[in-house]
Amino acid sequence: MTLLDEDRLFPTDHGLRALARQLYDTVKDLPIISPHGHTDPRWYAEDQAFPDPAQLFVTPDHYVFRMLASQGVALTDLGVPRVDGGATETDGREIWRLFASHYHLFRGTPSRLWLDHSFQHVFGIDRRLSAETADWYYDHIADCLARPEFRPRALFERFNIEAISTTEPATDDLRWHRMIRDSEWNGRVITAYRPDGVIDPEMAEFADNVALMGEQTGFDTSTWAGYLDAHRARRAFFKEVGGATSTDHGHASARTEDLPHDEAEALFAKALAGTCSADEADAFRGHMLTEMARMSIEDGLVMQIHPGSRRNHNDAVMAAHGRDKGYDIPGRTDYVTALRPLLNAVGMDKRLTLILFTLDETSYARELAPLAGAWPCLRLGPAWWFHDSAEGMRRFREMTTETAGFYNTVGFNDDTRAFCSIPARHDVARRVDCAYLATLVGTGRLAEDEAHEVAHDLTYGLAKRAYKL
Amino acid sequence: MTLLDEDRLFPTDHGLRALARQLYDTVKDLPIISPHGHTDPRWYAEDQAFPDPAQLFVTPDHYVFRMLASQGVALTDLGVPRVDGGATETDGREIWRLFASHYHLFRGTPSRLWLDHSFQHVFGIDRRLSAETADWYYDHIADCLARPEFRPRALFERFNIEAISTTEPATDDLRWHRMIRDSEWNGRVITAYRPDGVIDPEMAEFADNVALMGEQTGFDTSTWAGYLDAHRARRAFFKEVGGATSTDHGHASARTEDLPHDEAEALFAKALAGTCSADEADAFRGHMLTEMARMSIEDGLVMQIHPGSRRNHNDAVMAAHGRDKGYDIPGRTDYVTALRPLLNAVGMDKRLTLILFTLDETSYARELAPLAGAWPCLRLGPAWWFHDSAEGMRRFREMTTETAGFYNTVGFNDDTRAFCSIPARHDVARRVDCAYLATLVGTGRLAEDEAHEVAHDLTYGLAKRAYKL
Amino acid sequence: MTLLDEDRLFPTDHGLRALARQLYDTVKDLPIISPHGHTDPRWYAEDQAFPDPAQLFVTPDHYVFRMLASQGVALTDLGVPRVDGGATETDGREIWRLFASHYHLFRGTPSRLWLDHSFQHVFGIDRRLSAETADWYYDHIADCLARPEFRPRALFERFNIEAISTTEPATDDLRWHRMIRDSEWNGRVITAYRPDGVIDPEMAEFADNVALMGEQTGFDTSTWAGYLDAHRARRAFFKEVGGATSTDHGHASARTEDLPHDEAEALFAKALAGTCSADEADAFRGHMLTEMARMSIEDGLVMQIHPGSRRNHNDAVMAAHGRDKGYDIPGRTDYVTALRPLLNAVGMDKRLTLILFTLDETSYARELAPLAGAWPCLRLGPAWWFHDSAEGMRRFREMTTETAGFYNTVGFNDDTRAFCSIPARHDVARRVDCAYLATLVGTGRLAEDEAHEVAHDLTYGLAKRAYKL
Repeated sequence: MTLLDEDRLFPTDHGLRALARQLYDTVKDLPIISPHGHTDPRWYAEDQAFPDPAQLFVTPDHYVFRMLASQGVALTDLGVPRVDGGATETDGREIWRLFASHYHLFRGTPSRLWLDHSFQHVFGIDRRLSAETADWYYDHIADCLARPEFRPRALFERFNIEAISTTEPATDDLRWHRMIRDSEWNGRVITAYRPDGVIDPEMAEFADNVALMGEQTGFDTSTWAGYLDAHRARRAFFKEVGGATSTDHGHASARTEDLPHDEAEALFAKALAGTCSADEADAFRGHMLTEMARMSIEDGLVMQIHPGSRRNHNDAVMAAHGRDKGYDIPGRTDYVTALRPLLNAVGMDKRLTLILFTLDETSYARELAPLAGAWPCLRLGPAWWFHDSAEGMRRFREMTTETAGFYNTVGFNDDTRAFCSIPARHDVARRVDCAYLATLVGTGRLAEDEAHEVAHDLTYGLAKRAYKL
Repeated sequence: MTLLDEDRLFPTDHGLRALARQLYDTVKDLPIISPHGHTDPRWYAEDQAFPDPAQLFVTPDHYVFRMLASQGVALTDLGVPRVDGGATETDGREIWRLFASHYHLFRGTPSRLWLDHSFQHVFGIDRRLSAETADWYYDHIADCLARPEFRPRALFERFNIEAISTTEPATDDLRWHRMIRDSEWNGRVITAYRPDGVIDPEMAEFADNVALMGEQTGFDTSTWAGYLDAHRARRAFFKEVGGATSTDHGHASARTEDLPHDEAEALFAKALAGTCSADEADAFRGHMLTEMARMSIEDGLVMQIHPGSRRNHNDAVMAAHGRDKGYDIPGRTDYVTALRPLLNAVGMDKRLTLILFTLDETSYARELAPLAGAWPCLRLGPAWWFHDSAEGMRRFREMTTETAGFYNTVGFNDDTRAFCSIPARHDVARRVDCAYLATLVGTGRLAEDEAHEVAHDLTYGLAKRAYKL
Repeated sequence: MTLLDEDRLFPTDHGLRALARQLYDTVKDLPIISPHGHTDPRWYAEDQAFPDPAQLFVTPDHYVFRMLASQGVALTDLGVPRVDGGATETDGREIWRLFASHYHLFRGTPSRLWLDHSFQHVFGIDRRLSAETADWYYDHIADCLARPEFRPRALFERFNIEAISTTEPATDDLRWHRMIRDSEWNGRVITAYRPDGVIDPEMAEFADNVALMGEQTGFDTSTWAGYLDAHRARRAFFKEVGGATSTDHGHASARTEDLPHDEAEALFAKALAGTCSADEADAFRGHMLTEMARMSIEDGLVMQIHPGSRRNHNDAVMAAHGRDKGYDIPGRTDYVTALRPLLNAVGMDKRLTLILFTLDETSYARELAPLAGAWPCLRLGPAWWFHDSAEGMRRFREMTTETAGFYNTVGFNDDTRAFCSIPARHDVARRVDCAYLATLVGTGRLAEDEAHEVAHDLTYGLAKRAYKL
C-alpha cells in the first residue's frame, strides 16, 4: 500500500491521463525554484535536527491547526505558543495524538495531500494516519528526525532545491543568511526585502522600526529624504548580504498612490508622529509602493504585492497567540483602480517587474489577466494561500490563460513555512499544470510540442527568469 | 421510455461513473433529513388532498412561474393570487396548458429535473410534458390527487422523510404543529423560529408584531429587557410546542453588531417609535443577530443566517401579487467584515452553531470557507436557492472543500415550498455529491473507503448532527 | 499537417465527443448572424483589397498588439498609429516578423485559435507561424490579398454571413451604408445606433455632437424636448438608411435613472453647459438609458447595454495612440441596483427587448441570470470580449442556464473589428455550445432531440429573433 495514487491530479480520461503523465515525467525531477516563502533561515544556518513530529507538522502550520480549531480543538492543546508565555501543551506525543484523531477533517483538502506526500516521500510511511496509527507514526518520525539525513541541509538537498527565498523584515540583521554564506555549505538560500514594518504607520512598532533603520544605515530617518535613502541602503544590504532578488509587500489592499513630494513628506511626518488618520495611513502605504517600484527600477529587485487578507479576524486568538494563527480571512480586492497611480507613474519602464498575487479569485479573469495582458511590468503570481490547491490552480489557469497567456505568469511559489511540504506543493503544481496542458492538447488548443515547452517553463524557466535567479 | 436517465448527474468517464453509482447506491435510500424549508404545516395537520395539478406544481412555485413570466406570460394567467383579491385565472386546466406549452423554457434547469422526477416517481408518468400531452398529464395527475395515497401524510411517508422543518414567524401560534402533535400521526414535522418580523424595524408591521409578542408572552415588549425576554419565551415555545431545533434569519446583508446595552436599548426605542434611519435599522438588525446568538448559547437552538437577497425588485409585481413572486434578486454579500462583531462576541463558544448560507458564490472560496475553516461555531449551509442545482452544488464543493473540508458543512437543505420536489432535490444533491467524491477518488485525492464514509455523512449524518435532529 | 484539430473544443470523453460532433455537424454550416460588431462598413462599400497582412491581422487588433505590448514590444513598432501623426513602423513585413517571433505568447488564448483558423480556412495555410515561417506567411497572405476572391464582399459571401451589424455613432452620416444599399451588391450590412457621444456629458465633444445632431435633424437640441426629438429622428434615420434594428450603449456602469421631467431637463442644461459634476454626468447617462428604452418601445429598436469597462487605463498609451488600444480593463459591475429604475419604469412592456452584456462574470449566476429569468424585457448577451473564449463561454452557460434557461439568451455576437476572425469566432461558439449540450445529454439533463433543437436555436434562431433580423 502507498498513501499516494501515482496518477493523482491527472485527468481521468484515458488519453488525457497518458498525455499528462508524459508531460509530468519530463518535469517531475526538475530542480525546485522556490522564489517566495517563509521557511526559517536559521534551520539552514544551524542545521539542527527538527525537535519532534508535532513541532515539525502541527504547531507551526496554520493550515493544520486552524482546521482542528474550526472543530473546537483549543490552540493551546496543539502547543501553539501563547503571547504571554502561558501554559500550552508541550508533550509532542499528546499533540500528535490529537492531530491524528482529527485527521479525517483534512479529507479533500490540499493539506492532506501535502502531509501524505511528506509521510510517504520524506519518511517512507505506507499506512494512513489515524488515532490507531498515531503512536506508530510518532515513533517512526521521531526516530527519523534524530538521523543526520533528516537535518535541514540534507533535506534541502534531497528535495532538489536549486534556490529558495526566505522573507525578512527590512530591519533584520540577516545573521542567519550571513552564517549560511560563511559556511562551507553551498545551498542557495536568499532573502527577500519585506518592508511592511517600516511602511505601515498603523503597526505599533512603526516609529521604532524607522528609527532602527536609521541607526542601521546612518541616514536621518526622521526626514523623508533620509527615510528613502535608508530604504535604498537596506535594499542594497539585502541584495549584498542576503542575495535578495525581490521585495515583498503584504498590504491589506492593492491601493497605490503617486503623491507630490510635499504631500508625501507631510504624510511621513504624520506617520512618524503617529497622527495619521486611517485613510492617511492607507495613502502613505499606497504611495510607498510607488516609491518601492521606483527603487526597483534603480536596483533591479523584483517587486511582489500580496494584498487582500483581512488579518487577525479573531480578537481572542490574536490576544492569546498573536499573528498568523489561522484567522486571516480574505476579502474583496480591487486592482484596476488601486494600481492605476503606480502603473501610470512607472508601469511602462521595462526595468520593472511587478508580480501580483490575489486571494480574490474574482479578479483573475476580470482584472488581473487584462492588466497583466497589457502592462509590460506586470506578471501574475501563482494561485496563492487558500488557492494553493488543485482546484485553485485549475481555476487560476482557466481564468487567466485566455487573456494573459502563460508568459505573463511566473511559475509556482510555495509560500510556506512548512519545510516538508515544499516538494509536495511543487509536485501538486507540476501535476495540475500538466493536467491543464494535456487538456488543452486534447481539445485542440495547444500542440503537443508546445505543451512540452510550456510545461518546462511553468515548472522552471518562468520562475527563474521572473525572479532573476 | 422514462423521463429520467438512471445515471443522470454522474461523471461521464466510465470508471468514475461506476464509482459514483456505487457510492450513490449506498445512500440513495437513506431517509430524508429536511432541516430547513417552507412547506405548509397545515398540509400535514389536515392531510387534505392537494386541489389540482396547477395548484400543486405551478401557482405556488416561484421557480416555475417566474420563468414563464420572463418570457412574457402574465402571473394572473398562471393563477398567482392578487393582493387586492382581483381576478386571476382559476381554471387549473388552463393554467396547466399554459405551463405545458412553455415547458421547453426549463431545458437545462434544475426545475426541469425536479418536475420530471416528480412526474416519474410520484405520478408514474413516462412521457414528456408538452402542449400535446398537457391534457393527458392534467387528467392523470388530477386523478392521482384524488386518491388517499397522494395525501400529504402518505407522500411524506413514501418520500421517506425522517424529519422536516417548516419555518414560522416568531408570533405564529403554531396551531398546525400542535394539531400534528396531537394527532395519531407520527411524522416528525418541526418548526424553526423566524423572528424577522419582530427584528426588522423597516417592516411595516414591526411595532404591531412586537406588541403581539408582548401579549403572547406576558412581557412588556415596550422595554428592551422585556423585548429580549419575550424572544426567550417565544423561542422556548417554539422548542416545546413546535419541536424547533433552529432559528432562521433572512436579512438583506450579513451585518452584525455588538452594541453596548444603552445603545441597543436606545435603538430599540427608536425602532418601536418608527424613527430609525436606514442605517440605524440595519444596525438594530445586526445587533439582534448577536442577541439571537447569545440566546442560542443558552437554549441550544442552531442559528441560520440567509442573507443576500434584494427582495421585491419589481414594484408592479410586488404591488399586484406581494412577496416571494420571483423578483428577489441576489446581490454581492460581504461576510468577513459583517460577521466580525458577532464572532468576536460569542464565536468561540462551543455551544453555538451558526450556519451560513449565501447567494453570492464569490464568497465560497474567498470568505465562507476560510471563516468556517477557522471559527469553531461556524458551519456552511449547502448551495442555496439559485445555486440549488447540479452546477451550483459542484461549484460549492469545489470552492469550499479545500479550505473548509467536509466536516464544516451540514449536508443538504431543500428549502422548498414545493412538496413533490423534496425527494427530487435530495436525489440531485446525493448524485452530485457522489459524483464529486468519485472524482476525488479517481484523481487520488480521497481513498475509496473514506468516500463511502463521507457520502453517508453528506447525505445523513452531518444534517442530523448539525441541526440536532 | 493542419493547424487545427478537427475535434477541437469538444469533450474528450469518447461518447460525449461523438455526440458533440453530431450536434455540431448540424449547425456548422448555418449562415452567420452577426448582430453586433465593429467591422468597417467602408470595406463592404468600396470593396478594396486589404492593404497587407500586418494591417489585416496585427495593427487593428487590440487583442493581438496588447499581448505583445504586455511583453515590452512598443506599439509604434507594431504600426499602431499615433494621435500626433508621429512616426510608427510602416513596413508591413517588419511588423509581421515582430508579430511572428512572439507568436508563442498566444498559446492557450482564443486569439491563437482565431488566427490559426483564419490562416487555415481563409488562406489555406498548413504550417505554424513562427520567426522561421514569418516571411513565407507574409508573402503567401500578401499574394492572396491581391486577388479578387479576398476582397471584403467575396469574403463576406465565403464566410456565409446572412446579416452583419456594424456600429456607428448617432451623428454618423451612414455614407458607407448608403453606398452599400445603392450598390448592386446584396450583402446585408446594417448599422446600430450608438449614441454614447451625444449622451455622455464627460466626452469632450459632447456639446458639439449634440449641436450637430440638431443640424442633422432640424430640432433645437439646446432644449430637452428638442434633444429627445433629435434622438427620435436619428434613430429613424438609422433604421431607414442603415437598416438598424438595435441600439448600443457602452457606459462605464449599468446605472439607470428615471428622473422627473424637470430634473432631467435641468441636468441636460448643465450637461450642455459643461457644468455637471461627475455624479450628475453619471445620473444623466443613467436617465438617458431609460429614455432610450422608452424610444425602443416606440420604434422597436432592440437595446443593448455593454457596461463595465474602465477605459484608457494607461495614460501614456491614451496620449500617444488614443482609445481602444488594449488598456480597457474590466471592473466590478452591479446590475441589480443599477437597472432597477429603468426596469420599474418600462421593464414589463412586452415591446421592449433589453440585452445585457457583462465583463464581470461574478454577475452571471448572482445577478444576470436571476434578472433575465424574471423580467420579461431582459435577455442575456453572450460571453463578451475577454470572455469570448472557450472557457469564458463554458462558464457563461454553466452559470446562467440553470436560472435563465437557454431562451433568455440571444445566441452569439462576435463584436469584432477583425474581419477574418468572424467565422473563427462563430465556429468556437458553435463548438463550445455543442460540447455543453452534449454534456447535458450525457449527464441526463437534456434529451437528445431537445439538444438538436437548442443547438439550432443557439446558432441561428435566437440571434435572429432577438435582434429582429
